[in-house]
Amino acid sequence: MEQPDEFKKVSMAVIKRLPKYHQCLLNLLKDNVERVSSQKLSKILGFTASQIRQDLNNFGEFGQQGYGYNVSQLYTEISKILGLNTSHKMVLVGAGNLGQALANYTGFSTHGFNIVAIFDSNPKLVGRKIKDISIYHVEDIEYIINENDVDIAILAVPQDKAEKIAIKISKTCIRGIWNFTPKEITVNSDIVVENVHLIDSLFTLSYHINEGKLQERLIKQKRKISLTHR
Amino acid sequence: MEQPDEFKKVSMAVIKRLPKYHQCLLNLLKDNVERVSSQKLSKILGFTASQIRQDLNNFGEFGQQGYGYNVSQLYTEISKILGLNTSHKMVLVGAGNLGQALANYTGFSTHGFNIVAIFDSNPKLVGRKIKDISIYHVEDIEYIINENDVDIAILAVPQDKAEKIAIKISKTCIRGIWNFTPKEITVNSDIVVENVHLIDSLFTLSYHINEGKLQERLIKQKRKISLTHR
Repeated sequence: MEQPDEFKKVSMAVIKRLPKYHQCLLNLLKDNVERVSSQKLSKILGFTASQIRQDLNNFGEFGQQGYGYNVSQLYTEISKILGLNTSHKMVLVGAGNLGQALANYTGFSTHGFNIVAIFDSNPKLVGRKIKDISIYHVEDIEYIINENDVDIAILAVPQDKAEKIAIKISKTCIRGIWNFTPKEITVNSDIVVENVHLIDSLFTLSYHINEGKLQERLIKQKRKISLTHR
Repeated sequence: MEQPDEFKKVSMAVIKRLPKYHQCLLNLLKDNVERVSSQKLSKILGFTASQIRQDLNNFGEFGQQGYGYNVSQLYTEISKILGLNTSHKMVLVGAGNLGQALANYTGFSTHGFNIVAIFDSNPKLVGRKIKDISIYHVEDIEYIINENDVDIAILAVPQDKAEKIAIKISKTCIRGIWNFTPKEITVNSDIVVENVHLIDSLFTLSYHINEGKLQERLIKQKRKISLTHR
């Protein structure tokens, strides 16, 4: 019987670890390390050696018993798995405060992710440039995305506009939305959405800082309730 | 027998949903909505009504059967739980590309999180200002944090400096580190670390965009192996 041509969906936990492998191997490459064992990787990354072997086995047979992994080869393979072997065109939607910050950040382009156009609805911003990238009116977004074969849209608009823009974008050739708005957006299933909720992250930090006080307060409440119920 | 004064640790999943409740209630407040049922919240947020009731029960008894939640009261309570009823002083460490972007972003201060000082080791940057906030030399960081009773440090330094700075900071009154470096940092347990790995998030998006191609490649590999093993 033929083996079915099936691809076991890789778990989200594994996917989330791939950038760590990528970064770690890049560092090893920079240090001219030629090969590395799963034990050594385990020490650097803090995952167990067996987990590392399992993770990488999802994508093929890379290591060799007794030899370990060839750093350069594994780096290239993981780059390919992450889609980093080709460059990506991005558009930035929203040139407000956060949008400007993202446009000014050059950390993405060093990995081949280049912002080719910025969009806003504010007539004061349209026609200007940030870091040599033109700001266009948002009504031109579908045309410019399709014409330039853009694959990623960064969403940095006010939350009440997020849904409308997402629907507009989903009719283009765009393949992924990097959503910086606090809004959860729903688009058709062939478009990938990845969220960065900065404020949520800050609030989570604040929650944990506040946890001690919160505990005291809840314990007091409990005591009060238990006293009144006696 | 006395009830033990114990605080059941709230699960991370619940904590991660709190900012969503906060945002949603703020929107309802803006729309002058006075009360809301868990069913209505469920429709807006996409969590089940029973999950919402369970989540909120972790922190006290807020709703009332048949009445629902008082929007303003619940908003105030969740703000308190998240530690948003007081303002927070932050320092930003690293005035490079990402640091400058974060310093220019005003979205944090609207929630009471204010950057009071910026640190860098580059003599060309020390003495300058970003949005009226002075850049100091990083060697002064312990003194300035303690003098100003700062509770949060935003880490936006190159990854090879992250650990060293984290150790330095952990000797101060700081209570939380908001880590934007790709490095996982380890500090003593009374300091909270919350990570924002922007590049990891972008790579995860890229992985999913690339997933189709990856599947084809892995299936081809499998076929090749199964052919050679016949």
